[in-house]
Amino acid sequence: MDDRETISYLGPAGTFTEAALKLAPQAVGKTWKPVLNVLEALQDVQAGTSCAAMIAIENSVEGGVTASQDALATMPGLRIVGEYIVPIRFSLAAAAGTALDAVRTVAAHPVAYGQCRLWLNRMLPGHVHVPAASNVASVDLVLANEGAQRLADAAITTPFITDHRDVAILASDIQDNGNARTRFALVTMGTELPERTGRDKTSLIVELPEERPGGLLSLLEQIAARGINLSMIASRPIPQQPGRYRFVLDLDGHLHDARVRDALLGIRRLSPAVTFLGSYPRAVASTVPVPSAYSDENYQAAAQWLQGLER
Amino acid sequence: MDDRETISYLGPAGTFTEAALKLAPQAVGKTWKPVLNVLEALQDVQAGTSCAAMIAIENSVEGGVTASQDALATMPGLRIVGEYIVPIRFSLAAAAGTALDAVRTVAAHPVAYGQCRLWLNRMLPGHVHVPAASNVASVDLVLANEGAQRLADAAITTPFITDHRDVAILASDIQDNGNARTRFALVTMGTELPERTGRDKTSLIVELPEERPGGLLSLLEQIAARGINLSMIASRPIPQQPGRYRFVLDLDGHLHDARVRDALLGIRRLSPAVTFLGSYPRAVASTVPVPSAYSDENYQAAAQWLQGLER
Amino acid sequence: MDDRETISYLGPAGTFTEAALKLAPQAVGKTWKPVLNVLEALQDVQAGTSCAAMIAIENSVEGGVTASQDALATMPGLRIVGEYIVPIRFSLAAAAGTALDAVRTVAAHPVAYGQCRLWLNRMLPGHVHVPAASNVASVDLVLANEGAQRLADAAITTPFITDHRDVAILASDIQDNGNARTRFALVTMGTELPERTGRDKTSLIVELPEERPGGLLSLLEQIAARGINLSMIASRPIPQQPGRYRFVLDLDGHLHDARVRDALLGIRRLSPAVTFLGSYPRAVASTVPVPSAYSDENYQAAAQWLQGLER
Amino acid sequence: MDDRETISYLGPAGTFTEAALKLAPQAVGKTWKPVLNVLEALQDVQAGTSCAAMIAIENSVEGGVTASQDALATMPGLRIVGEYIVPIRFSLAAAAGTALDAVRTVAAHPVAYGQCRLWLNRMLPGHVHVPAASNVASVDLVLANEGAQRLADAAITTPFITDHRDVAILASDIQDNGNARTRFALVTMGTELPERTGRDKTSLIVELPEERPGGLLSLLEQIAARGINLSMIASRPIPQQPGRYRFVLDLDGHLHDARVRDALLGIRRLSPAVTFLGSYPRAVASTVPVPSAYSDENYQAAAQWLQGLER
Repeated sequence: MDDRETISYLGPAGTFTEAALKLAPQAVGKTWKPVLNVLEALQDVQAGTSCAAMIAIENSVEGGVTASQDALATMPGLRIVGEYIVPIRFSLAAAAGTALDAVRTVAAHPVAYGQCRLWLNRMLPGHVHVPAASNVASVDLVLANEGAQRLADAAITTPFITDHRDVAILASDIQDNGNARTRFALVTMGTELPERTGRDKTSLIVELPEERPGGLLSLLEQIAARGINLSMIASRPIPQQPGRYRFVLDLDGHLHDARVRDALLGIRRLSPAVTFLGSYPRAVASTVPVPSAYSDENYQAAAQWLQGLER
Repeated sequence: MDDRETISYLGPAGTFTEAALKLAPQAVGKTWKPVLNVLEALQDVQAGTSCAAMIAIENSVEGGVTASQDALATMPGLRIVGEYIVPIRFSLAAAAGTALDAVRTVAAHPVAYGQCRLWLNRMLPGHVHVPAASNVASVDLVLANEGAQRLADAAITTPFITDHRDVAILASDIQDNGNARTRFALVTMGTELPERTGRDKTSLIVELPEERPGGLLSLLEQIAARGINLSMIASRPIPQQPGRYRFVLDLDGHLHDARVRDALLGIRRLSPAVTFLGSYPRAVASTVPVPSAYSDENYQAAAQWLQGLER
Repeated sequence: MDDRETISYLGPAGTFTEAALKLAPQAVGKTWKPVLNVLEALQDVQAGTSCAAMIAIENSVEGGVTASQDALATMPGLRIVGEYIVPIRFSLAAAAGTALDAVRTVAAHPVAYGQCRLWLNRMLPGHVHVPAASNVASVDLVLANEGAQRLADAAITTPFITDHRDVAILASDIQDNGNARTRFALVTMGTELPERTGRDKTSLIVELPEERPGGLLSLLEQIAARGINLSMIASRPIPQQPGRYRFVLDLDGHLHDARVRDALLGIRRLSPAVTFLGSYPRAVASTVPVPSAYSDENYQAAAQWLQGLER
Repeated sequence: MDDRETISYLGPAGTFTEAALKLAPQAVGKTWKPVLNVLEALQDVQAGTSCAAMIAIENSVEGGVTASQDALATMPGLRIVGEYIVPIRFSLAAAAGTALDAVRTVAAHPVAYGQCRLWLNRMLPGHVHVPAASNVASVDLVLANEGAQRLADAAITTPFITDHRDVAILASDIQDNGNARTRFALVTMGTELPERTGRDKTSLIVELPEERPGGLLSLLEQIAARGINLSMIASRPIPQQPGRYRFVLDLDGHLHDARVRDALLGIRRLSPAVTFLGSYPRAVASTVPVPSAYSDENYQAAAQWLQGLER
């Protein structure tokens, strides 16, 4: 097996993370290697035993969002090359022939279980929760034994489970929040950037040089002063430095946009502790227009004007 | 049982959340009611069946951070009255007499399991993971049966477990990251504010009125323009409005500080969709000094000057 | 003569400053006292020998703009109660019967002379300039003697001169710049503010507490952060402190607008060295709309919200 | 006479403007051509009949500051290559043998006269003012005739007058304000920049693209966001567009400083209507330090970092 052809992901097959892989053109034809958590997936990439990892970076029900952010901040050389959004929908699965009103025990990953409480309270009052390590492991608990030996009567799982396990779906869309979505990122060690598409995103992690009122403002001014929209921001405590924070940022635009290069230069001058995590196509196009003052054309016009000042 | 005397928390007894309760003066003498997740705890408070809930709001290993943020944004009337920080330290516990090298199966909540991978790989190579619903349920799996019937040989659990279960500690501080800490908040429905201590924090959730480059900057300017330090910020997608975000913010200072009142007024004028989550003593004092221009005294001096302009 | 009924102005009668007085409703029925310069006019007001002074504050052809700014900054208690704009138009006047082509010598205030150079070069090449102390004194030089004794054949003067002197106009609108206008201010010692009209202006002079990059920006942020348009700004060196500057500012709005009060408070907190020069109706209505976030209504809504946080 | 060897200035010899010329190394060995006003001096430069003009740009007692600003904004191709500061000190001069108490009439340029009012009121009460076209022409009125024919007994003039006219100084330093200074600029049509000295200044004139609250702030942010101190700002009404303003700005630094180039690019993108008036050594070194984040070294470090992102 050629390592350059393997992608690590939070497994096993059938998870939401695997669903994200199915959305990624770069994953087609590669070997998909299920691992136990985000850190393991990223370590495979750093070690070169996988060419990429798919990890959750927002709103995950499979865990790992802050772990992902902290890993990207501290493991050098990682680059995001694409993002993918998977709607979070849960199904209740059971062995063929099981009726809903016969379900007494429900296997579920604790987070998934938490997201289906309203439905469970209404439809299965008095059931018992059997914890599972993942949204697929829950099904395996149901299938492990039969009859009275069963560890669980039914399992909370993903809608894709029927591709992987021989189960019947007792109920679909049982999640409390109908709009939940998880954002995933495909991460590599390469330095080649995905081509600019015009609807791109650039991810950064920045530590401020000092704590003072307005410190974050100075950072964000470097972005706003170039007409760039910020689509995500999160402060993360720096473990070794109590009271200090680093900032995880997503900007609209690509490193090949003049305004983004300009903003990166401004941020880097303000703080040498900046990590560029990549420029890549957005999963959902931004609805925030770029002011014409910050177009590539206007950057070029200004540069020509400046050059013309000294002839 | 008087409901006003009950506090809900993510149980069972022995969790990190219970450890946070032990730090809260307001919790002394109350009944502590273990519940299954953050939402349930907050619903108890809203329903009035508990007077308060202790929930994780940063860096949790027991889940619930983004769930907490989203619940605080959407469940009206909640107020934070205190914050508490618990270091995240894991122990490996087993029935008395179990030797470390006899451990083949390890019960653990999936997140806790993920945080001890390095130690487990080094000390217990080849072990099998048995998922548990919490850092206490893991121990119960060990204690449920004996001998060959045991569901797990050892459990990853909190350092406080020996107060609650009769187990022996095989190893302490087995977590990969020695500096991890979880921040908890005590949440009520009251509108009485904790007294100003001089080292306070104010929490807000704000939705911007429109998406445009610099929109977040306008918001943060309202804070920085009053010399106020921002100690936490996180954007959270608004589920019903794809592409739009709300911002969870922690400011240094108390609603009774003139500069904080002034900043809140400025934010409210900018965006009517602002939720005040409370002012309360910080768990760790801020190291960021307030410029003298923004002292209460200087607010008063300016107000007097303005009044003097028209006599 | 009741001193409260006298207004000092840069005389003599027939100047542009007198034309500004004719525009001021407050000047009707008062005694108009011509003086020699701006400082003298303001000293009359401070001494109480006049109730008001009319002074040029922008673009003057009769001198005194920076002198006015510096006097307003250093003479305590002065307040602007109205502004008036007079177009700067010059005429060439002579004794009845003088033909244009007979003019060899032209009496003119040096500044007025400078503003009519193009016309003079074209129409009266080879003429000689005879300096005069004012745009009226120039005419007096023409009228002082007759025939060969004449000190000047013609005078550059204001269009209103025929109301005051018995001269013929040889040419009108001889100024080089057809759009020049001078802005005048009526200044008193009172503290009663002119009523808010909805198209008002507020004038300030501010010294920054320290010299640093962005110092002026902090000041202007206090204004922009309240949605207020700045219609004039000028830095003026502080004579006693080489390298330091004070700033003369005109804002859109009235002290009775909540946003203006709020901005003044913010400026005063930033710098105790702020002089409020008054709120008064603009001579020309601003074309810059106020964002609705900064309306009085929204200020009130925000204040009510804040009050509601503690019940 | 080689035109490239002539410098025009507000004459005649003996004025403060001539004193500024004496401070300029570039003026040594050139022919100094006295002209009647700023516009004429600048027209000589544009026409190529002079290689440079010395004009007052701040606080002038010889007139012309706003005229200078407006001319620099509208006459294309002009560049400032140096600035010079002359203290404003006035003397009272008379023909040899005249005693101070015999002075009844005082010749003076109207502005100079206004600046010596306190001394005149105290020392020469009851004197009569005879207007003069300049601070040298005043002396010529004294010297024109003798005895009873004299047009004036004494003249207010510059301290340098004795180099040019045969007069006696009756009193020195008679100006009301002991700290007044005029700033002059030497203006050319060349595009070669004076070498960077480390204590330079850059002058600009900028029109904002639209009138809105915070428009000026956006402009100044482009400057402050590069750690650059603003040492002068003045808004000037645009004659043809009532209610609109252009801004005259002096920045600390030279076009060859990376931060200044960067700020100019930012300003140019914001507003195409920007006029670069030159970079030249400051007459007085700035006391405002440049933050190290904006040093040339840090600009280079950031550029290298950016380049390294794509290998």
